[in-house]
Amino acid sequence: MSSVHMRTYKKKSFPLSKIRRFIEPGPIVMVSSAHKGERNIMTLGWHMMLGLEPATIGCFIWDENRSFSLIRRSKQCVINLPTIDLIDAIIGVGNTHKSTVDKFEQFGLTPVDASKVDAPLIAECYANFECKLVDTSQINRHGLFVNL
Amino acid sequence: MSSVHMRTYKKKSFPLSKIRRFIEPGPIVMVSSAHKGERNIMTLGWHMMLGLEPATIGCFIWDENRSFSLIRRSKQCVINLPTIDLIDAIIGVGNTHKSTVDKFEQFGLTPVDASKVDAPLIAECYANFECKLVDTSQINRHGLFVNL
Repeated sequence: MSSVHMRTYKKKSFPLSKIRRFIEPGPIVMVSSAHKGERNIMTLGWHMMLGLEPATIGCFIWDENRSFSLIRRSKQCVINLPTIDLIDAIIGVGNTHKSTVDKFEQFGLTPVDASKVDAPLIAECYANFECKLVDTSQINRHGLFVNL
Repeated sequence: MSSVHMRTYKKKSFPLSKIRRFIEPGPIVMVSSAHKGERNIMTLGWHMMLGLEPATIGCFIWDENRSFSLIRRSKQCVINLPTIDLIDAIIGVGNTHKSTVDKFEQFGLTPVDASKVDAPLIAECYANFECKLVDTSQINRHGLFVNL
């Protein structure tokens, strides 16, 4: 063995319910969706790349979330990449669960027509990824939406 | 509408093969595995939380990677959370694909017995999550290992 750098501090057990804090800190995105005249935005931190070519992204969406049914029914969404100046909207959207609120209006975000999906882009976001649902098989089991 | 902050710069199309650069930047982990006397470590950036209770983590592992078969066969792995002082080992492990190299020895990492799985912990890492594979159904389709 070439060298060993053994830390001497003692490790301790950690509650399983809190390990997410180590795994989560990636880019927070805002997911917009629409179906039959209804539209919504959600703040999302549980996502991952699942393929390069084609570029595939997995998103975990809780089934109690309004976006869950909009995306499942429309089979589309937009993943919008916000910048730090949108922090109030990001947090506000993430904490708003009233179905009567239009989050675009509530948080001063501008819906713009997408080119390949019916879900609106959020104009203020730095980047917008138009996505189509390509695998619905894991929605019920894992809340996992696989998007292309 | 309360207020609109419309950015005026023009958006442009972006190659699908490069959008991963926006989604990826989360915590990099090192995954250790073992099966029938063979052991390995890989550097992993494609992972996500998939559940809180129980704490479930999805990991994308390329089928050409040695860890792919070790984890699939043993149905276990350890997700190790490295700190920045391990950067040389993190990059070295990520760039080493020779099956004759023992990455623990090569990069001065210390294997330590885990308590609930046979895969070794990496002693130098800040945290170690002992994982058992709970859903193998998406390995062939998405390279997705769902761990508890």
